[in-house]
Amino acid sequence: MSHMMRAPENLIDSSIRAWEAVREQGPLVQCLTNAVVTGFTANVLLALGAAPAMVDIPDEAGPFARIASGVLINLGTPGSEQREAMREAVAAAQDAGTPWVLDPVAIGALPVRTALAAELAGAGPAVVRGNASEIIALDGSGAGGRGVDATDGVEDAVAAARRVARATGAIVAVSGAVDVVTNGAREVRLHNGDPLLTRVTGGGCALGAVMAAFAGVDGDRFAAVVAAVTVYNVAAELAAERSAGPGSFAVAFLDALAGLDADALRSRAVIS
Amino acid sequence: MSHMMRAPENLIDSSIRAWEAVREQGPLVQCLTNAVVTGFTANVLLALGAAPAMVDIPDEAGPFARIASGVLINLGTPGSEQREAMREAVAAAQDAGTPWVLDPVAIGALPVRTALAAELAGAGPAVVRGNASEIIALDGSGAGGRGVDATDGVEDAVAAARRVARATGAIVAVSGAVDVVTNGAREVRLHNGDPLLTRVTGGGCALGAVMAAFAGVDGDRFAAVVAAVTVYNVAAELAAERSAGPGSFAVAFLDALAGLDADALRSRAVIS
Amino acid sequence: MSHMMRAPENLIDSSIRAWEAVREQGPLVQCLTNAVVTGFTANVLLALGAAPAMVDIPDEAGPFARIASGVLINLGTPGSEQREAMREAVAAAQDAGTPWVLDPVAIGALPVRTALAAELAGAGPAVVRGNASEIIALDGSGAGGRGVDATDGVEDAVAAARRVARATGAIVAVSGAVDVVTNGAREVRLHNGDPLLTRVTGGGCALGAVMAAFAGVDGDRFAAVVAAVTVYNVAAELAAERSAGPGSFAVAFLDALAGLDADALRSRAVIS
Repeated sequence: MSHMMRAPENLIDSSIRAWEAVREQGPLVQCLTNAVVTGFTANVLLALGAAPAMVDIPDEAGPFARIASGVLINLGTPGSEQREAMREAVAAAQDAGTPWVLDPVAIGALPVRTALAAELAGAGPAVVRGNASEIIALDGSGAGGRGVDATDGVEDAVAAARRVARATGAIVAVSGAVDVVTNGAREVRLHNGDPLLTRVTGGGCALGAVMAAFAGVDGDRFAAVVAAVTVYNVAAELAAERSAGPGSFAVAFLDALAGLDADALRSRAVIS
Repeated sequence: MSHMMRAPENLIDSSIRAWEAVREQGPLVQCLTNAVVTGFTANVLLALGAAPAMVDIPDEAGPFARIASGVLINLGTPGSEQREAMREAVAAAQDAGTPWVLDPVAIGALPVRTALAAELAGAGPAVVRGNASEIIALDGSGAGGRGVDATDGVEDAVAAARRVARATGAIVAVSGAVDVVTNGAREVRLHNGDPLLTRVTGGGCALGAVMAAFAGVDGDRFAAVVAAVTVYNVAAELAAERSAGPGSFAVAFLDALAGLDADALRSRAVIS
Repeated sequence: MSHMMRAPENLIDSSIRAWEAVREQGPLVQCLTNAVVTGFTANVLLALGAAPAMVDIPDEAGPFARIASGVLINLGTPGSEQREAMREAVAAAQDAGTPWVLDPVAIGALPVRTALAAELAGAGPAVVRGNASEIIALDGSGAGGRGVDATDGVEDAVAAARRVARATGAIVAVSGAVDVVTNGAREVRLHNGDPLLTRVTGGGCALGAVMAAFAGVDGDRFAAVVAAVTVYNVAAELAAERSAGPGSFAVAFLDALAGLDADALRSRAVIS
C-alpha cells in the first residue's frame, strides 16, 4: 500500500511499547462523553490502567483539560451545558498542548451535533474517530447515518477519512470490521476485533477514550492510535472466546483488557 | 376472562412472529430515558436485535422521532432540557405516525414528572407501561408510590389500567409478579418473569424500550406488547437459572435475550 | 488508640445488627450523584436490600428528601440544574431530619465543586465520605487531588478528617487501603476491602450511597457508618476471590452483597 511508510512489524513493536507506557504512566483521561456510555468508558480506562475523569461542566472542563494527559470529546448526547463545556475544554487543550480526540457520534442527520462536529473538527483534534457513516458525514460528502450503526462500509469512507485528516491535521480512525487509520499520507488497516463489540453499547465510544489515553503518553502519535485500536481489539478477541453472549462479553472484555500481556498482543495483532 | 378476545395460543404464536420480525428488521428505537438506566437499556435493545439511539436533546429529538421505528419516553430523571426534548419528540412522533411508549416512572408524589405524565398521556401514546402504583397515579385515583417500587399490587391497578387505556387510546401494561396488558377491552395476564428483575436497576425501564422496539414493527400492536413482555420475561427466567445473584443475573439476562430461540419462547410462555 | 471509645467486638456486633436492619427495613435512598456511577450505585443499593431513587431535579429533590430514609449528595458531575437540586435536597433534609451524606468527589483543583462542597459541608451532613486528597482539600489544607485517585495516603488525612468532623458535626470516613472513620472524638480503622474496588468506577461513590442507607435506619450513627464500610468491604473481599479481573469483580460484588450472611461478616470483619 503506497500510503504505508513503516513496516507492520514496527507498528506491532511500537504498539506494545505504547501500551506498556500507558500501563506505567496511567494517563489521566478527561471524558466529555455521552450519558449512555460513561460508566462503561470509565471501566474500560480503569481496566487499561488509565485514570478516567468525567469533568464535563463549564468552568471545570477548561482548567481540567490543562492538566489532563488527553481529552475525549464524544458527541453522543450533547446537551447545552456539555456543549459549552466541550468548547471550553477544546480551547484549553489547544492552549496547553493536551491532545484531544473527537468522536462525532451519529452526525449527519442530527443538526446540533453535526454543526458542533464541524466546528470542533476545525479546532485541532489530534484524533478523529468514527464509523464510516460518521467520517463520510464529517467530510461533508454523505447523507449521514441513522445513529451509531454504520450504514456505509469502511472502505467507502477511506477517501473521506484522508480528506478529513488533511483538512484537520488529525489522525483519522474509521471503525468497522477492518479498521483504517490514516493521517492523509500514512495509512494502515487493522484486522483485529470481534463483532460482539457492536452488541455492547459504548463498544465504539470507549475506544475513543482509549485513544485519548494512548495519545496522552509521549511517542509517535500515529503509532499510538494504531496501538489503541490494536490493544482494544485484541482484548475483544480474547473476551469473545470466553463469552456466551453480549452480557458476558462486556464483562470478559474488561477482564481481558486488565489482564493483557505483550505476548498475546504480539501473537494476535494483524496490521497491514 | 370476558375481556379476552383471542385464544392464548394465538398470542404465543403472534409473540414469536413479532419477535422474529424485531430480529429481522432491527427497529431503530429512540430513547429519552433516565440517567440511571441508559447503558443497560441500550444493551438490552442491542441484545434483542434492535438499534438503540439515545437522542434526547432539543432540536434533535423531534427530527429523530420522525425516522425512528419507535420512541420511549421514560420520566425517571426528567431534567428541564430533556422535558423540552420529550415534548418535541412526542409532537414529531404523532405527526409522523411513530409509535411511542410512555413510562411514568415514580409519578404520584413528585410534582414535575406527575404533571408531565398527565400532559403526555393525553398526547397519544401507543403504550403506557408502569407498575401498579404508577398506573393508579396516572389514573388520578392513587396517592402515588414512593419511587420505582410498586406499593400497590397489580390486581389493584387493573381497573385503573382499563380507564387509562380508554382515556388515552393506549395499550396499558402493568408490571408485577403477573403482568397485565389491556386496551380497555382486550386484556391478558402474563405469567413469566423472575423476581431478580426487580433487583437490577432498569429491569422495568428497559422493558419500556423493548415495547418501543416491538411497537416499531408492523403487525397487531396489542400482540406486540404481549410479545415484548413475554420475550423479556422468558429471557429473565432463563437468566435466573444461570445466576448467583443480581450481578450475574443482569449479565445472563443480556446473554439470554441475545440467544433466545422460538422453542424456548413456545415452551415457556404462559399467557391467560 | 485514645480516640476509641468502644471495643471493636461491639462494633462488629453493631455492624451486623445495622446490616440486618437495612435488610429488614429496605431504606429509601435518594441519590443526587454523578452521571458515571448512577447505574452501578442503584444496583449496589438493590443488592444491599435498600431502595434507590435518583430524584435529582429542582422541585422534586426537596419534597423527596423529606420522605427518603437517607440522601446522598455526590459532587462528581455537578451540572447547574443538579447543583440547584442538591441545595434544595439538603435544605429539605435538614428541615425534615433526614440524614444525608456528602461525597466531595475530586474537589481541590476544580472550582465549581470545591465551592459547593465547602458550602454544603457547613449545612449539616450526617456523614462526609472521601479519599484522603478530598478530605484534605475539604479541610482547606491541601492542594487537591487530580481526580478520583487519592494522591495522599489515608494516614495523611486523619488530622484533616478530625478537623472536618469537629467543624461540621459529621462523621467523616476516609477511604483507602485502610479506612478511617472519625467523629473527631471516636475513631476506628477498618481493615477490610480489596484493591479491585479501585478498578471499578463507582467503587467509592456507591459506598457513599450505602452509608446513606445505613444512616437511614435507626441506631447509633457512628456504628452505622462503620457497618456500611465493613459490609461493603467484606463483600468486596468475597467477590475478589471469585473474580478474574475488574469486569467479573463488579458482577461478583453485587452477587456477594446480595448473598452476604452474618457469619461471613463476623468472621471477616477487622476493626481496630
